[in-house]
Amino acid sequence: MTRDWRQFCEALWSDPGTGFSLDLGEMGLSAEDFEAREGLVQKAIGAMAALEAGAVANPDEGRQVGHYWLRDPAMAPTPAVRAEIEDTREAVLAFAAAVHRGEISAEDGEAFDRFAVIGIGGSALGPLFVSRALGEVSAPMRAYFVDNTDPEGIEQTLARLGGPEGLKRTLTVVISKSGGTKETRNGMLEFEAAYARAGLSFARHAAAVTGAASELDRYAARQGWLARFPMWDWVGGRTSVCSAVGLLPAALEGIDARALLDGARALDALTRRAQTRANPAALLALAWHHAGHGRGDRAMVLLPYKDRLETLSRYLQQLVMESLGKALDRDGREVFQGLAVYGNKGSTDQHAYVQQLRDGRDDFFATFIEVLRDRSGPELEVEPGITTGDYLFGFLEGTRRALAERGRRSLTLTIPAVTAFTVGALIALFERAVGLYAAMVNLNAYHQPGVEAGKRAAGEVLALQTRVVEALKRTGEAMGVTALAAATGGEAESVFRIVRHLAANPHRGVAQVATGGPDEARWRALS
Amino acid sequence: MTRDWRQFCEALWSDPGTGFSLDLGEMGLSAEDFEAREGLVQKAIGAMAALEAGAVANPDEGRQVGHYWLRDPAMAPTPAVRAEIEDTREAVLAFAAAVHRGEISAEDGEAFDRFAVIGIGGSALGPLFVSRALGEVSAPMRAYFVDNTDPEGIEQTLARLGGPEGLKRTLTVVISKSGGTKETRNGMLEFEAAYARAGLSFARHAAAVTGAASELDRYAARQGWLARFPMWDWVGGRTSVCSAVGLLPAALEGIDARALLDGARALDALTRRAQTRANPAALLALAWHHAGHGRGDRAMVLLPYKDRLETLSRYLQQLVMESLGKALDRDGREVFQGLAVYGNKGSTDQHAYVQQLRDGRDDFFATFIEVLRDRSGPELEVEPGITTGDYLFGFLEGTRRALAERGRRSLTLTIPAVTAFTVGALIALFERAVGLYAAMVNLNAYHQPGVEAGKRAAGEVLALQTRVVEALKRTGEAMGVTALAAATGGEAESVFRIVRHLAANPHRGVAQVATGGPDEARWRALS
Repeated sequence: MTRDWRQFCEALWSDPGTGFSLDLGEMGLSAEDFEAREGLVQKAIGAMAALEAGAVANPDEGRQVGHYWLRDPAMAPTPAVRAEIEDTREAVLAFAAAVHRGEISAEDGEAFDRFAVIGIGGSALGPLFVSRALGEVSAPMRAYFVDNTDPEGIEQTLARLGGPEGLKRTLTVVISKSGGTKETRNGMLEFEAAYARAGLSFARHAAAVTGAASELDRYAARQGWLARFPMWDWVGGRTSVCSAVGLLPAALEGIDARALLDGARALDALTRRAQTRANPAALLALAWHHAGHGRGDRAMVLLPYKDRLETLSRYLQQLVMESLGKALDRDGREVFQGLAVYGNKGSTDQHAYVQQLRDGRDDFFATFIEVLRDRSGPELEVEPGITTGDYLFGFLEGTRRALAERGRRSLTLTIPAVTAFTVGALIALFERAVGLYAAMVNLNAYHQPGVEAGKRAAGEVLALQTRVVEALKRTGEAMGVTALAAATGGEAESVFRIVRHLAANPHRGVAQVATGGPDEARWRALS
Repeated sequence: MTRDWRQFCEALWSDPGTGFSLDLGEMGLSAEDFEAREGLVQKAIGAMAALEAGAVANPDEGRQVGHYWLRDPAMAPTPAVRAEIEDTREAVLAFAAAVHRGEISAEDGEAFDRFAVIGIGGSALGPLFVSRALGEVSAPMRAYFVDNTDPEGIEQTLARLGGPEGLKRTLTVVISKSGGTKETRNGMLEFEAAYARAGLSFARHAAAVTGAASELDRYAARQGWLARFPMWDWVGGRTSVCSAVGLLPAALEGIDARALLDGARALDALTRRAQTRANPAALLALAWHHAGHGRGDRAMVLLPYKDRLETLSRYLQQLVMESLGKALDRDGREVFQGLAVYGNKGSTDQHAYVQQLRDGRDDFFATFIEVLRDRSGPELEVEPGITTGDYLFGFLEGTRRALAERGRRSLTLTIPAVTAFTVGALIALFERAVGLYAAMVNLNAYHQPGVEAGKRAAGEVLALQTRVVEALKRTGEAMGVTALAAATGGEAESVFRIVRHLAANPHRGVAQVATGGPDEARWRALS
């Protein structure tokens, strides 16, 4: 240990109400480091207060940022917004309860006993994290996720759902804030086709969470889906888990969605505190700032010692990296900011990459998450007086010490147990820490301008594919890449990748007819 | 694109036999960059040849490094080693076949229809990756994994296995090279207890993969388990997937283990080539060296566009980071080396952190993995002429371009499909690339000296726990942390964490009797 007991007691933040505590003792933070950042932290706390009061915190898109209102609707800026939040929450819970009671049932009148979520990014990672953290094998409905446009992955999920027989009992929840996300649209169409092959009506097995009057919303309305729940432009995808996006899947799986909201609200109260040392989100933001010099020079390695929290790192990759990974700051200056997040779980990761954390590059800070409650079932002593859970605890302690011995930084967040309340609280804690950190380094945490470029380029590639296929059909002859590029106005390299992909898949109408390197090969349309 | 068609054709490595190709065109490698590293690469290729011929490549532990022999036993340095490899492989396959035919059956004489793997690190990540990549819902046996000492996680897996009824049909495979890994031992004891609660004999449902005469081997022999398969000291855990460690779970799940070995052998042949530009592993190692200046200055972000390959990043975190994350080089100089690896899958991750990759810190290189074959089932057009798989392809292309536009580096590995052959080939390709890179930067890739520190510290914590509990019982009175620390010779902070953990769990015999901060609280032994 690099500090004595007195320093430890002084530095430990803890809250008896939630049972959370936060130990920054191994982050190498001196009193001067705190002082040097006090102005920044206080500015950030002020910015968050303005945001919560309804300021337009996302100026690029002219949007308010209201995810905090979701768990405390009384904070909403207008009675109409408050009513929308409360009505949606109650509608979601009532829908899930009606499904569980069999009042809302499958096409054949039998009860649903499983459900699939089709969504991606902000519409999948929150529900997935909550499901993995809190889902029980004995849940009233088992949850499945389709979070990609991989046809084989979709086939696998359909098989896991039990094929055509399983689909009879499957409620499918399609989630897309914009209602136009292509991966989600594709997953929906694949599911629709699978229901149709099973002789089932998709509409009779489907519910939507999406913005009012979005493409998806209109589609669902037209087809008469079982239910539609709204999303609002003042909730960002990566902070949407307390909206219907997260609440509906949670409630369907039998998770206590109200407790999730309660936990988030409780942490919101703690993280609104003006005093830095009393505010756990401010402490986190300050520690991140110190570790990475306000530039993300050290990655955040997440080590929750609990299998249930294994997907927290994926959830936080999105929350942190999409919020903080920005080319420009709020004043338009090029900053190329970011904060990389990775990790899985302890003690498993000790046998994977803790070797590098201890011995290798000093380019990270570990974030240990300790869960005090070991299990619900009976204890098993694996040695006299020592349980399986004591080992989990011991390995966390041992790794923390082993890192500290080498001057590697870590912080430890301790929570009493993995419950709906604490999961909501965890989410809220990191949401606020990200918001505060972004304010400290002068970033807009609420847009994602870099995401569009890849989508646009993908659209161009698919448009080129269409032209390539047309050109091959038109000539009817074998063509090489340069000829195809000339005929379509495409780049040769892209043309090559397109025909290689098409030719690798039967039934796509394109065959490779001469082998050799990219420049020798020829492709032909099949009639 | 930052290069023209001629440059692309020249730079593309491809192999018609395996269908693999590798494009380093977006890594910013000039002809001079290749030339500057030619000496290092050639030295590394020479070092790998010596290693394959049986040199002691891991001098700290005086061990040979023979995972290449596993897929080409004719290369083994002695006929005895060759026979061991071949006999073990055949014994594993025969065992799995006998289980599938029901000749080796559960205690009640009925066939096994599911299996659990208990292992961690090198004894879990390979089997897990292979299972996730190749397992089918229609597999003869479904695979489950216990890879931690989290009691709640173990309870969940037991529930997923179907509780006591499920255990009747469950074969449990315990994997530990050393035979003394505590997490694995604990998982085994938890399973043993669960079988016993179900009225079942664990031994009649268990098989082991472990070093001859290890603690686990002797335990399994004494109890008369169904089978024991050997591990050898010349196979490192993180490269053990071609030994019984990987082959047994694969074969049980109905995966073609011979094809996996064939794929690895095929890539081994390609990666033995002396010419740098003809050797895909040398190209990878050279590209990593260039991107990170031989110091790992850029993290490897893994983006396989295929759900089945989602756990590849976890597999490679271990393979790469445990091999390369080292304090000292082979000459004993402090270098604090490493190469961080993270990522999940595309296009999912585009909706999570690609925002940061494109706009944020230039501290990574992306490794795209493209799978040409989209699916086994019928194609679905989601727009005229465009399929779900075209979108997956388009998003990969789009993201590659979006990164290149901003000068962010990427390389693209293209494989024909996800099959046992290509998965074996992928594993072999990265194994060799890590070996070559380690040789280039003068590291011993085959030891993990930093892992012991955490285990040792964990042992000390658990020993202190025993003394703390004894002290509480002895006095019978409420004690504070400083008193307990004095009574046990422990550090106050560790004592505090120990009693906090014990008191949070009922039935552990310790209660907190006074609240307040760490220095005010008191704990007492319960009688």
